[in-house]
Amino acid sequence: MRIAVDVLGGDHAPDEILAGVVLALEQGFPAGDLLLVGPESLIQEKFGETSDCPAIVHTDVKVEGDESPTEALRSKPTSSIRLCADAVAQGDANGLVSFGNTGATVASAIIVLGLLQGIRKPGIAVSLHGVNGRFVMVDAGANPTPKPEHLFLYGLMGCAYAQDILDATNPTVGLLNIGGESSKGNPVLKEAHALLEASGLPFVGNVEGNQIFEGSVDVIVADGFSGNTVIKVLEGFGEFLMAGFARLGEVASETAKDTFRELLGVADYTEVGGAILLGVKGTVVVGHGRSEARAVPPALFAARDEVEKKVDKHIIEWIARHSKTATPS
Amino acid sequence: MRIAVDVLGGDHAPDEILAGVVLALEQGFPAGDLLLVGPESLIQEKFGETSDCPAIVHTDVKVEGDESPTEALRSKPTSSIRLCADAVAQGDANGLVSFGNTGATVASAIIVLGLLQGIRKPGIAVSLHGVNGRFVMVDAGANPTPKPEHLFLYGLMGCAYAQDILDATNPTVGLLNIGGESSKGNPVLKEAHALLEASGLPFVGNVEGNQIFEGSVDVIVADGFSGNTVIKVLEGFGEFLMAGFARLGEVASETAKDTFRELLGVADYTEVGGAILLGVKGTVVVGHGRSEARAVPPALFAARDEVEKKVDKHIIEWIARHSKTATPS
Repeated sequence: MRIAVDVLGGDHAPDEILAGVVLALEQGFPAGDLLLVGPESLIQEKFGETSDCPAIVHTDVKVEGDESPTEALRSKPTSSIRLCADAVAQGDANGLVSFGNTGATVASAIIVLGLLQGIRKPGIAVSLHGVNGRFVMVDAGANPTPKPEHLFLYGLMGCAYAQDILDATNPTVGLLNIGGESSKGNPVLKEAHALLEASGLPFVGNVEGNQIFEGSVDVIVADGFSGNTVIKVLEGFGEFLMAGFARLGEVASETAKDTFRELLGVADYTEVGGAILLGVKGTVVVGHGRSEARAVPPALFAARDEVEKKVDKHIIEWIARHSKTATPS
Repeated sequence: MRIAVDVLGGDHAPDEILAGVVLALEQGFPAGDLLLVGPESLIQEKFGETSDCPAIVHTDVKVEGDESPTEALRSKPTSSIRLCADAVAQGDANGLVSFGNTGATVASAIIVLGLLQGIRKPGIAVSLHGVNGRFVMVDAGANPTPKPEHLFLYGLMGCAYAQDILDATNPTVGLLNIGGESSKGNPVLKEAHALLEASGLPFVGNVEGNQIFEGSVDVIVADGFSGNTVIKVLEGFGEFLMAGFARLGEVASETAKDTFRELLGVADYTEVGGAILLGVKGTVVVGHGRSEARAVPPALFAARDEVEKKVDKHIIEWIARHSKTATPS
């Protein structure tokens, strides 16, 4: 078991990424299970005095946050994210974690690792907490303009994830929409609704934004535009609330503040292991570009968890079980 | 000045609507400025013992929450929402407030009141609080699949609203999208971006979901699907947080709880006067179907404010000032 880490990916890379790796080691992540992809001398400097320096693949080449993913893939064959994907493809690692340019991570995964059989577009799965426990939303931004069959496949991928990672025994599926009736939303959502309904999946129908935190549905299928907007709005609103609560000062007890932070943390997907790219061959964890060191350990543990639970294998099984509806042209 | 109230619209109508009207009177809203549209005997019973019973237009016909708007408009010519719109069209009222079926309210407004010159689709404006004060988001759900020129016009309508209602002297405009670059998003958003950029409006470019609460932009232009999802997610997340905080019990001081409620209230558009339908001739306030009595007074005061500030007149002026770009075919 080995997880490749993109040391150069992220707004605060490489310092916060390396600091995060140190945190993960302190939390019991084995150094032997890591493959750090980045500047060798810098990494050695960081781990030089300890005996458990992880394995290193050297590169100084990074993809910037605002760089075109396809352009970067072409012009930078030795970028840190590309070498992470190469390591997984060659069997030197079982999965990768990157906090860099999400588009570049997705593109590298598609091109280098390839898609699982039957999958047309990968989707980003983000798990959040609801009143009744965790649920997963797919897609959180890999595919902003999906076709109906992509959304249907996100439902299947989400089921595999919910079963493996969230321990949902009979995962239920809902479609993020702006009204309860099947006639609501745009043509793509209406058709996705029909596909999900015909599939035999435990599909509960449309779920509106105010219902997702009820946690009564295990898998929320979303188009990547809406899914991405949801997690970003939660992030911004969380920051707004935190700032307002901080102004309380002494008036709020420490316990109240702790609870507040804890509650807001449930909307922070970086605290529960980042986001996972489903549908590619291998495990890919996509962290938030703004992440600091504390976001690294949950991402590493999430990557290991996904590898161990064989989510990709189970996605293929879910697709096979629903092959009739899962393979529209 | 008179505001028509749809007494039969809403999940808790007519009881909570009438209770809310009583609250509004207590808060100084003049009885003479009200026109209650609903069951006469029930209304008289409620106000019978007071001397200041508002004017009444009688009807027992209501549009249900899940009814098809166009079907309801055709088959129920004396529904409460339809009679509210008639009252505005005939000059018996200057504006209307409804907590009923949003689609039916929008359809009634379009058909009975008509659109302002130059407007192709009305948009729902919702004002929220950010770190730097209030901002307005248009559209929050009237038009889930807008064309680029609709979005451009939402920018103009939003400017009129921000200037009149939020006292923004030089309102800035942003486009809700999932990335900062003009190349982000779907084709409709890319084209809307180009229209806004060419318009001469103070357009700051794309704004992502995590940035809207910074409050650095006065007007957020959104497609109705995303805008609706944003306010619903805020609602659901707010309820989730409130439930979690309530479990704190004695540990949190009353002051901490009050601050928490107040902070969450800023995301509750019903607390700041519901949502306003912009682009139609006359003032239309669209309340949340789940509203209870306390949501009625802010909606009434918001309606009066919009009538007094002549937002619709100023929308026409904003369009005239940008007529070159505002009238693409």
